[in-house]
Amino acid sequence: MKRQITRKEFLASATKTVVAASAGAAAMSVIPASGEQSGQAGVVDKASTAWPWQYKTLDREDVRKRAHKSYFDGGCCYGAFHGLVGALADAVGEPFTLIPTQMMFWGGGGGAGWGTLCGALNGSASLVNLVVDRANANALIGELFGWYTAVQFPTDISNDYAAHHQFLVNRYDKPLKQTVAGSTLCHASVSTWCTEAGFKAGSTERAERCARLTGDVAAKTVDLLNAFYGGQFKAAYVVPKAVTDCQGCHGSAIGNVQSGVKMDCQQCHRQNWDHLY
Amino acid sequence: MKRQITRKEFLASATKTVVAASAGAAAMSVIPASGEQSGQAGVVDKASTAWPWQYKTLDREDVRKRAHKSYFDGGCCYGAFHGLVGALADAVGEPFTLIPTQMMFWGGGGGAGWGTLCGALNGSASLVNLVVDRANANALIGELFGWYTAVQFPTDISNDYAAHHQFLVNRYDKPLKQTVAGSTLCHASVSTWCTEAGFKAGSTERAERCARLTGDVAAKTVDLLNAFYGGQFKAAYVVPKAVTDCQGCHGSAIGNVQSGVKMDCQQCHRQNWDHLY
Repeated sequence: MKRQITRKEFLASATKTVVAASAGAAAMSVIPASGEQSGQAGVVDKASTAWPWQYKTLDREDVRKRAHKSYFDGGCCYGAFHGLVGALADAVGEPFTLIPTQMMFWGGGGGAGWGTLCGALNGSASLVNLVVDRANANALIGELFGWYTAVQFPTDISNDYAAHHQFLVNRYDKPLKQTVAGSTLCHASVSTWCTEAGFKAGSTERAERCARLTGDVAAKTVDLLNAFYGGQFKAAYVVPKAVTDCQGCHGSAIGNVQSGVKMDCQQCHRQNWDHLY
Repeated sequence: MKRQITRKEFLASATKTVVAASAGAAAMSVIPASGEQSGQAGVVDKASTAWPWQYKTLDREDVRKRAHKSYFDGGCCYGAFHGLVGALADAVGEPFTLIPTQMMFWGGGGGAGWGTLCGALNGSASLVNLVVDRANANALIGELFGWYTAVQFPTDISNDYAAHHQFLVNRYDKPLKQTVAGSTLCHASVSTWCTEAGFKAGSTERAERCARLTGDVAAKTVDLLNAFYGGQFKAAYVVPKAVTDCQGCHGSAIGNVQSGVKMDCQQCHRQNWDHLY
């Protein structure tokens, strides 16, 4: 049960709030001036919600298990976000205890089931940007996305856990076929796996595959964040030559494709190209 | 300056927290038991962060302007999320003042620039799920996505505002060519517009187009939320027959495509089909 704070502790906290409000003028405030409220009854230590939120080194295998389990509670996007936020709530406490991780339910199945961005990436990316500034978050998320397109899912670790340790809530405990998505899109990732593994999208095996993938993506996110905050992060993903070749003419400066787009052009376009690179 | 609460008010707030903690057992708690912290110094009215957060009717045109302006501060995903959260912070106060809208910077350009899910949709969807339960959020977001694929962007209202009222921070004030994206993907949405409008992806005009689109998507989100909370929401989007025809064989039960996927199959697949529907 939660201990009630003493009046002395409360006053110390209130003082900290004033100090933080001054400090906040230098950093970016949570909500700009127009959104500030006065005279509210709620008592909140505003200092703790200043962005980016505090990160503490996490255990990748602990987060993998949390995310895998949470997949069955709310899908891939919630699973990854809840696994990461829950671990930080245990490690740091507030403000991670304040954010409703349910806000990421919608990202499952590539966004309300539409098959766009993989929800495990969506949920993990939102957590990264909660604890990392904009430029570095984009670098870390770009690395996460690139890794996702090239790795064998489910990874050996997730397959091994599920098959031998029985600690997960999976409804299928055998190792699963591994495939490379070649894309950050849910539809491509799931369809490729289903085709090669021989399971339907509505199958128990496919759900377990996505649960293991959710654990894998959350664990990789921990690796990236631990490396970044440990001063060890180095981008390793190299955009495929096929993509950079296309961008040479179709990029943002002389063509009509945003320069950052790194999805594999061939997956959708190759069949109707009137020229080859 | 924020008024310090009296001891009496604090005790009343603490009582409310206990009541909320009990109520939370029925609803879904913000963070499950494993994430609960004890003995923390921060003083927070936990009741205010119970999910889903309180929604109040918003002014769609006010939110359109906020989102358009915020695009230039942090991109499409941040723009939509910040515009919506900022309006709710003004209307409701906490807990909307607590969430760092900067956590959505990453969604710009379809996710760290990768061109996947349109960031304006990503940011708006996260807000919807913050104030609406899972099933209804998916229904509202599905409607938002469907509307997005079929509407002319920028809408007449955004084009008219930008051209005649000069209240926005746009760097280009003429009406812009309108195009139908036919997709929820940033890459398809932007590339289609660039091709038909004759502007490069790196141009000022393209940025202004995406800023207006950000306002349009946030305004549509307000329409949907106002309708939902007013008991007036009715789904209007109909999945194209071309998609449902494909799903007849390629759906989750007998094929390898998740049943919820509603992206237009033809955009990527038509050229290499060995049969037509």
